[in-house]
Amino acid sequence: MTTPRFSRTEIVDTASLAAATETISKHHSIRQPVAIIGTGLLGTSIGLGLRAAGLEVLLTDPSPSAQAVAEDIGAGRGLTQEDQPGTVVVAAPPDVTGEEVIAALQRWPEAIVLDIASVKTAIVREVEHAVQTGRITPRDSLRYLGTHPMAGRERSGPVAARGELFTAAPWVLCTQPDTPRQVIYVASDVARLLGATIYHMSPEEHDAAVAKISHLPQIAASLLASRLQDTSVQALQLAGNGLRDTTRIAASDPSLWVQILTANAEQILPELHGMKSDLDRLIHTLSQPTASGARLDVAQLMDEGNRGQARIPGKHGGPAQGFALVTILVDDTPGALVSALQAVADAGVNVEDLRMEHSSGYQVGMLELSVVPGHKKHLVDSLTELGWKVL
Amino acid sequence: MTTPRFSRTEIVDTASLAAATETISKHHSIRQPVAIIGTGLLGTSIGLGLRAAGLEVLLTDPSPSAQAVAEDIGAGRGLTQEDQPGTVVVAAPPDVTGEEVIAALQRWPEAIVLDIASVKTAIVREVEHAVQTGRITPRDSLRYLGTHPMAGRERSGPVAARGELFTAAPWVLCTQPDTPRQVIYVASDVARLLGATIYHMSPEEHDAAVAKISHLPQIAASLLASRLQDTSVQALQLAGNGLRDTTRIAASDPSLWVQILTANAEQILPELHGMKSDLDRLIHTLSQPTASGARLDVAQLMDEGNRGQARIPGKHGGPAQGFALVTILVDDTPGALVSALQAVADAGVNVEDLRMEHSSGYQVGMLELSVVPGHKKHLVDSLTELGWKVL
Repeated sequence: MTTPRFSRTEIVDTASLAAATETISKHHSIRQPVAIIGTGLLGTSIGLGLRAAGLEVLLTDPSPSAQAVAEDIGAGRGLTQEDQPGTVVVAAPPDVTGEEVIAALQRWPEAIVLDIASVKTAIVREVEHAVQTGRITPRDSLRYLGTHPMAGRERSGPVAARGELFTAAPWVLCTQPDTPRQVIYVASDVARLLGATIYHMSPEEHDAAVAKISHLPQIAASLLASRLQDTSVQALQLAGNGLRDTTRIAASDPSLWVQILTANAEQILPELHGMKSDLDRLIHTLSQPTASGARLDVAQLMDEGNRGQARIPGKHGGPAQGFALVTILVDDTPGALVSALQAVADAGVNVEDLRMEHSSGYQVGMLELSVVPGHKKHLVDSLTELGWKVL
Repeated sequence: MTTPRFSRTEIVDTASLAAATETISKHHSIRQPVAIIGTGLLGTSIGLGLRAAGLEVLLTDPSPSAQAVAEDIGAGRGLTQEDQPGTVVVAAPPDVTGEEVIAALQRWPEAIVLDIASVKTAIVREVEHAVQTGRITPRDSLRYLGTHPMAGRERSGPVAARGELFTAAPWVLCTQPDTPRQVIYVASDVARLLGATIYHMSPEEHDAAVAKISHLPQIAASLLASRLQDTSVQALQLAGNGLRDTTRIAASDPSLWVQILTANAEQILPELHGMKSDLDRLIHTLSQPTASGARLDVAQLMDEGNRGQARIPGKHGGPAQGFALVTILVDDTPGALVSALQAVADAGVNVEDLRMEHSSGYQVGMLELSVVPGHKKHLVDSLTELGWKVL
């Protein structure tokens, strides 16, 4: 990576940022060249990141144009018949990942093969089945490790790829008891060079985890958003951040999610049954809202929602924290946000989290900042004194 | 309001910001003094806003300390026996709003009475019932208008109150065919002086609207979040913005929402039945995920979710727009955000929307900006050239 002209050392915590970006130790166990099978968003991003780390990367994709774009933006060179990759990363859609893993294990008998699909047990079972039917040997299968980098974009395809995509993102390595250490080292090094945070889980633990924290939320958002199809424009004018937040991920790509949800159906179903049970109970209660016990029942659901939500880790994976919110009215121009945040910085208060709130009608935005509760009053006073409108 | 020392005219669109804030025409039809019944967050905020607009405000609350705090922060003076308010705003919990409206109509036979509860039909029915049982006359009931300002905070109580709370927020006036014009003018002026955007709907239209765009999302978030109660810490480490977004409002106050959901049960139930039907269908499909037609079925749900989500208005109530996302890695210090946004402003690109993405592990944050798609490449190039890490 080129040295930036603009030195940011005066404002960074060099230890942590360096650890996450440029000065990551280049020492690694990855056998080169690395072949990436599938140059979509993730595969191409992996290529870009590994190239930036100085590795030799080979690319292949069924779509000649997808592969050409990936090569053009510098993610690697085209894989040829003569190439003997030492490491293979299968970055294909979940549906074909199993077959691509098996094909790679067969084609390059010395290579370590990783995949990055969102579901892991299904892939592992496909590989095991290939052993049982004699397509590959048990030793072959030990060269494979399932992994899952949890990063993504709203866009797909190689054009949207960025080498930094995985920075500080979770990367799960689904090691099993018989996974050879060398394979684990290689997978760890790939994740580390790309700046990710490594977690170890079995394939089953992984699938159960993502069912709850990724797949169920996706389903809930889609179920909720689909109700809006026949909602009047007038009603939608009243939409606030609650609706936007709960339906944001309903804009996801159907073709990808069909593959994910059907592949992980086994882990998702218990969650859906649980949700259905709670929903049935709520329907029953609200059918007799004035009955004795109705309010307690609804209160219990709300309370359980409070408890569950509070368990989600806060900033940087630490304990869930209660920050105070400060909302500043900002005009809808490029300089306004900078001005507002400069005023916050001048007050010496760190912004723990921030988002824009949409306004209905007037051309103003509301900048909602999360700050440590003890700093709130000082910040509100400082901003108000400077003439800012603080909600 | 005091003239700000820091003049922001050089960075604001004065026409729109002025319309939203200081130079709102002070001419109004509101009969003073205005009595606010209930000095919680909303009532106290209304008091602060109206006082700032130069009106005389009287306050009362069953809790002496809540009322004292509201008086202390300048929302008004305490209501006395001798006072004859010309306008009454009932800002009590939904459960007691009806009774407070009736009491106000009885106590002050000339006053116009408004309420601000989240549900409207229930209140209207209580007032109608009071006419039927002879507690008030039909003429009395014409002095009442149900309204609903759609603004709020994560905190409750007078201490969190801000006069600017309603700036650019929707305020629904639930006018009926026989609502006298004078009553509508007064209600409109209250909303206007507080900077809100006015919408007119019947009580039934309102309740149906909020059932879909506010109450159902709340329920969905609580149902989803409650599933996390028994999710392992390890699984929660993988939580990303999808989970956070879909469960954010599950942190809402149970006691308030019990009142809202039970009061609006009639409008909420059809939505719950629809959701249950979709959920049952999905459970059926995922029980046989490899069956013919299973994928099409899941794809249909995802597609309907896409369509519904796309109907949510975009910025400032305009058409839903597709912005491009640009994610910048920022260090976790006060100056870093300012630096990043200054770089964006220097590139001449307007930030349409923004939020922080949480990272897992490293002490960096990811600033996610929404920009007009045509500006994305230029922005990414500019930032990258300056040494910023753009994901």
